[in-house]
Amino acid sequence: MPKKNAFYAQSGGVTATINTTACAVIETARKHRNRIGKVYAGRDGIIGALTEDLIDTSKEPAAAIRALRHTPGGAFGSCRYKLKGLEESRAQYERLIEVFKAHDIGYFFYNGGNDSADTCLKVSRIAAEMGYPLVAVHVPKTIDNDLPVTDNCPGFGSVAKYVATSMREAGLDVESMAETSTKVFVLEVMGRHAGWITAAVGLAQAKAGQAPHVLLFPEIAFDEAAFLAKVDESVKRHGYCAIGVSEGLQDRDGNFLSESGLRDAFGHAQLGGVAPMIANLVKSKLGYKYHWAVADYLQRAARHIASKTDLEQSYAVGKAAVELAVAGKSGVMPTIVRASSRPYRWKIGVARLEDVANVEKKMPRDFITPDGFHITAKCRRYLEPLVAGEAFPPFEKGLPKYVRLKNAAVRKKTKTAFKL
Amino acid sequence: MPKKNAFYAQSGGVTATINTTACAVIETARKHRNRIGKVYAGRDGIIGALTEDLIDTSKEPAAAIRALRHTPGGAFGSCRYKLKGLEESRAQYERLIEVFKAHDIGYFFYNGGNDSADTCLKVSRIAAEMGYPLVAVHVPKTIDNDLPVTDNCPGFGSVAKYVATSMREAGLDVESMAETSTKVFVLEVMGRHAGWITAAVGLAQAKAGQAPHVLLFPEIAFDEAAFLAKVDESVKRHGYCAIGVSEGLQDRDGNFLSESGLRDAFGHAQLGGVAPMIANLVKSKLGYKYHWAVADYLQRAARHIASKTDLEQSYAVGKAAVELAVAGKSGVMPTIVRASSRPYRWKIGVARLEDVANVEKKMPRDFITPDGFHITAKCRRYLEPLVAGEAFPPFEKGLPKYVRLKNAAVRKKTKTAFKL
Repeated sequence: MPKKNAFYAQSGGVTATINTTACAVIETARKHRNRIGKVYAGRDGIIGALTEDLIDTSKEPAAAIRALRHTPGGAFGSCRYKLKGLEESRAQYERLIEVFKAHDIGYFFYNGGNDSADTCLKVSRIAAEMGYPLVAVHVPKTIDNDLPVTDNCPGFGSVAKYVATSMREAGLDVESMAETSTKVFVLEVMGRHAGWITAAVGLAQAKAGQAPHVLLFPEIAFDEAAFLAKVDESVKRHGYCAIGVSEGLQDRDGNFLSESGLRDAFGHAQLGGVAPMIANLVKSKLGYKYHWAVADYLQRAARHIASKTDLEQSYAVGKAAVELAVAGKSGVMPTIVRASSRPYRWKIGVARLEDVANVEKKMPRDFITPDGFHITAKCRRYLEPLVAGEAFPPFEKGLPKYVRLKNAAVRKKTKTAFKL
Repeated sequence: MPKKNAFYAQSGGVTATINTTACAVIETARKHRNRIGKVYAGRDGIIGALTEDLIDTSKEPAAAIRALRHTPGGAFGSCRYKLKGLEESRAQYERLIEVFKAHDIGYFFYNGGNDSADTCLKVSRIAAEMGYPLVAVHVPKTIDNDLPVTDNCPGFGSVAKYVATSMREAGLDVESMAETSTKVFVLEVMGRHAGWITAAVGLAQAKAGQAPHVLLFPEIAFDEAAFLAKVDESVKRHGYCAIGVSEGLQDRDGNFLSESGLRDAFGHAQLGGVAPMIANLVKSKLGYKYHWAVADYLQRAARHIASKTDLEQSYAVGKAAVELAVAGKSGVMPTIVRASSRPYRWKIGVARLEDVANVEKKMPRDFITPDGFHITAKCRRYLEPLVAGEAFPPFEKGLPKYVRLKNAAVRKKTKTAFKL
């Protein structure tokens, strides 16, 4: 294949380490100058390709690209814009190919989760169908840790480290004050369908009796009576109860608890916020004083406490994606393969996008204790290596110093404008 | 004065660095063995003195005491138990003296905020009145940073560093996604009456246009129209708006917004949670998609991102308290005196408890911009040194390794039980 330019886009919710993957893609591409020309990034993700709003990463000095390794968020912008089926959205797929053709793009790197794996697969198919030579490689990224085939997902380990650290710290706080003050503390974490992040909260517990005492997974239907009994037992036994709850907690009928009718002072349905609901439930039924926290974006942006293992893997998948691409492999995704847990050994593997797209990996039942309220030793063995190691960002004036790129626009070449 | 034992108690909300002060008190007392016998700590704060539930810190090895420097929460337990006036609560004050007498306690170190400064003063007065020789020294601690006389309060710098870091990180996240997703992000922080922590959120902004764009202080009555106009302007100009809000935000009549009638699905008043209220207001009036976070205990327990300056000062006040005590100074509190801001130079001073007790230091008006929505350069100059420097805790298996003391009980000596 002759030398071609590459297109890279960030997709979906950003993470503390997606820029590390971007760094790897760009740095590795720069090492293959005989095969890859420029790396163009989509401004605000795939939208940038549709609107032909491309960023020329070659304008960024090596130091700025290197600094992406320690910068959270999405340096080129990301989006939640799902391309539908090939038939429904044919014009969009064709537009992508039009833009790729205009900019001599022969490599497509799409950095995201389940949805984007599906999009990447479809782009690869339509390119083949249209006879346009394109190597499409999906690069995994999701804090939800719910991609199949790969042992774990880049971005997850850092969220896991953040939520476990936060629970360990807040747990000590609550424990200190429980005699006369807060007895129940609730920390809400992300993961709408899969309980991996909730499970990571469980890592905070170094010994039985320590926080957290109760975990509420999206995979386990909420059983109010069993939950209240568990909380009460914990308060009576340990003096307090620390709870980790998934934003995606559901009742027996599969309804999200967070959507069950909370109304604010303005009369509007209160979306999100399962933590205050759970805390209020405890207060009303058991009478315990409570506090609650909702980590929200703090958890997925917390580069200051990122996992070194996660950073290494986030880099490795970006590097592998480029190497797969120059080897001509299309419609694939680099994966993380676990060779052993103790000591932790891993390597990079490859998955076919057909096996990845739109498949969601939930927590196995044997990672959750029989009563449904905590993680098992098996789960702990799986999670522990993923949070291992520290790689603090540089600090300036007491705060992390994060890079902002120039993000210089590439001159448009197509004659047509594209409406989203 | 002959050799006497010392009593140390933690009071009120704990912090990421109160144990650093405890470490300093104990280590410094151990250096004055000719004057100070054992250091007894109150289990769960002053309650431990009333119930004669004392902890013998001499049972803890030096390494465990040293590890308090990097352990958040209150290692001996704390409480929110306010002793009232001398007349109303005479029996309690007399009980304290009874317990002190029984355990040959001649030094009283009380580690807390405004309320505990007042208690410490009263204890010192009643001891004098009863002819019991007691040196009472208050050791400052409060994340609220609202003690008078001292330039700043131990515990605050670390919360400030945490909230500023969190906002900087979450701001990058929101900025990345704003084109198609969340446009308004709200972070709720502590500080019910004083806006110091809210101000610290403002440090996240390294350049104009970056997060946060709006701060809502408890000192500035909430003006809905002006606020909405500001948010709208920010979204139109920067593509998004990041907001830091104090839990103590009030309306023009001095009512807390968080108590203005939010009810949950169970019909109970929703206490706390001004962030979701503000977010919903923005959504209903401006239509922008939002996210919100409530840091709650995470912020005051976040030892993993504590300020080195704060840790040094937290240690220094504990050390100074003991040195003041052995010099016979009673009814005082060590303070932090700022000699200069750039470069930052500080030393330890002394305040009389009469000047500290029950006085609350709010944000000066010239630390807040004229429109009431951000901090001034003067405020930034004040805050910056307080978050400077990093001192990460040790990590084990990817998580901070915090110490737990044995907290061995001292055998009771009084014949009487005391009911709280």
